[in-house]
Amino acid sequence: MTDLARLETPRLLLDAVRLERNSQMMRSRAAQLGVTLRPHLKTPKSIDVARVAGGGTFLPATVSTVNEAEYFARGGVTDLLYAQGITLNKLPRILRIERETGARITLLAQDMATVAALAAEAAGANTTVSLAIEIDSGEHRGGLRPDDPEVVRLAEAAAAAPSIAFKGVMTHAGHSYGTDDLAEVRRIAGAERDAAVFAANAIRKAGVPVSMVSVGSSPTVLHAEHLDGVTEMRCGIYLFWDLSQYSRHVCRLDDIAVSVLTSVIGHNREQGYLLVDAGALAMSKDTGAHKYMPQAGFGLLCDAETTAALGELAIAVVYQEHGVVPVTDPSWFERLPVGAMARVLPNHACITAAAYPGYDVVRGAQVVAHWPRTNGWA
Amino acid sequence: MTDLARLETPRLLLDAVRLERNSQMMRSRAAQLGVTLRPHLKTPKSIDVARVAGGGTFLPATVSTVNEAEYFARGGVTDLLYAQGITLNKLPRILRIERETGARITLLAQDMATVAALAAEAAGANTTVSLAIEIDSGEHRGGLRPDDPEVVRLAEAAAAAPSIAFKGVMTHAGHSYGTDDLAEVRRIAGAERDAAVFAANAIRKAGVPVSMVSVGSSPTVLHAEHLDGVTEMRCGIYLFWDLSQYSRHVCRLDDIAVSVLTSVIGHNREQGYLLVDAGALAMSKDTGAHKYMPQAGFGLLCDAETTAALGELAIAVVYQEHGVVPVTDPSWFERLPVGAMARVLPNHACITAAAYPGYDVVRGAQVVAHWPRTNGWA
Repeated sequence: MTDLARLETPRLLLDAVRLERNSQMMRSRAAQLGVTLRPHLKTPKSIDVARVAGGGTFLPATVSTVNEAEYFARGGVTDLLYAQGITLNKLPRILRIERETGARITLLAQDMATVAALAAEAAGANTTVSLAIEIDSGEHRGGLRPDDPEVVRLAEAAAAAPSIAFKGVMTHAGHSYGTDDLAEVRRIAGAERDAAVFAANAIRKAGVPVSMVSVGSSPTVLHAEHLDGVTEMRCGIYLFWDLSQYSRHVCRLDDIAVSVLTSVIGHNREQGYLLVDAGALAMSKDTGAHKYMPQAGFGLLCDAETTAALGELAIAVVYQEHGVVPVTDPSWFERLPVGAMARVLPNHACITAAAYPGYDVVRGAQVVAHWPRTNGWA
Repeated sequence: MTDLARLETPRLLLDAVRLERNSQMMRSRAAQLGVTLRPHLKTPKSIDVARVAGGGTFLPATVSTVNEAEYFARGGVTDLLYAQGITLNKLPRILRIERETGARITLLAQDMATVAALAAEAAGANTTVSLAIEIDSGEHRGGLRPDDPEVVRLAEAAAAAPSIAFKGVMTHAGHSYGTDDLAEVRRIAGAERDAAVFAANAIRKAGVPVSMVSVGSSPTVLHAEHLDGVTEMRCGIYLFWDLSQYSRHVCRLDDIAVSVLTSVIGHNREQGYLLVDAGALAMSKDTGAHKYMPQAGFGLLCDAETTAALGELAIAVVYQEHGVVPVTDPSWFERLPVGAMARVLPNHACITAAAYPGYDVVRGAQVVAHWPRTNGWA
């Protein structure tokens, strides 16, 4: 065990107790809803976190890059959903991962040319690919409207191709992150579920079996009234939470499991600020909490040992490796001398964490483990 | 050589011709000004780029993290300036790097407690550390005002400590990035130079020799009227340039040497956009060009082979791994089918590049090399 105070900063800390509590909470929620939990591992990008998410074993998982798919497949996760429209330049690696690990990676498509090309490529490689169709349930990012006749045509084409194992439909109501009104989140959750179930039933009416009806985002799965007709739910940020979610009342401040350990590297009493070594790379430039909590800045400062908030101190300005923390009460210059440390809660945990090669896992002020992450696309 | 079209996306491309041209331009500029060029390698974080910056050999260099210091010292750069206030938790690694590589890393301080602690730690380790004082020339980030009496007191204390090799002063007029008025940049460059020279002369008047009078940012060193009294200039973004600098008239669009290769992963004709696989991680959430060029979005799309702008196409919205490119002319759906590629010019090259483990170095549409980067702090 290492004492926090001996760490070089900035470092990414993961509070094991909070992670375990968040994980258990969502497993219970999935059980209550009667669906499979397929966590989105783009948030943690860590096989150790994936194990905690499953309570000691691996759940089916969602990934956002082929690199994540490879990392988790090689780590022992056997059922993966690659939640982004597939393009042919990524297919050779997907097929190699499946061949070498035995994992199954379900792909997404939303146009006939891609379905046809996938069928041909998989046939040419003497293999099959699993495929689902992405449905737009109101976010208007990826996917087809649930009542678009192309949904059924794509399903029929996929089901007719011997080299495609057609699974079903998926949707992500990402616009649930856009409101702090939980009644509105509940309404969006209903629309997300209805869109997926409508599309699945349309496909079934055309005689094509559907085994995957996949929905989710952390806010919608927590606030859905029910998930009847759905087979699985996806969510990722619940593992870590962050200020964006806190500002929307989706979590509590003391649910946030990741933070950045930073050191005070300078004082400017004349201008009234502390300088810290957590800047644009250490925190990211995400401002996801600002809509409802502009005072979040680029992160809220907390006590390095206890994670108790340090008044309202926040990083207001970031440069590449510098953060500026305005102070109105000059006693902070005594409480946080040059060299003092703080934990900083991030706006958006997925983006902040992506700058780090791994987590220093803490219980209290003790580092109990180091868990590596996979980053990037290579 | 690999054809671009075979790359998995997103990938970070580096145009070798533009990098060489930018590097040569700044070496000529330093020679014209009669000062040493000490490029800031926080932008490229690559030993191969450092070699091009020096025209085949290594120049003295600036770094923003201890990790960069270690990487470049082990790669053969012998004269480094760590341009952030030092804290004691970073000192053991600094001393180890110096001991193991023979490189010299000049540190920065701006308060007496840190100078005293450095002197004691270095003495305890039977070694010396090089130290400069950071001066605030108007950016109001780090540093002391040039006329603050503490500047001379710190210099005297450092010079009196046998374990400190006192070098001089450094300043960075980072507020030069805040304007698109080149006359204002010239004025800021004058203030940056004057602040450093004033502080250096005040220290000399107290009988302490000063060998380093270090100033710079890419805009100020390009537009300074002269650098009399200065010994070296620092600048980094000139190696790559980006839309933030372009929007401020500091570079031309075809000077920008880094771009992100992306694939079209979906069409939404109803909503009128293309989806690409370059999102918040591939581009960063930096919006540095927006003040003068809001249409830059999160990056401008260019032809994958020629880097010619694709009309006014830009990534308007980013999700973690998705970018949304609005199109008003539907012919773009035919010109950029699902699977088509584009190069995207970034808002802020330093931040975008930090998500990638390395560069695919291109000449035209051919990948001629892969150059690794160092990222993070570990």
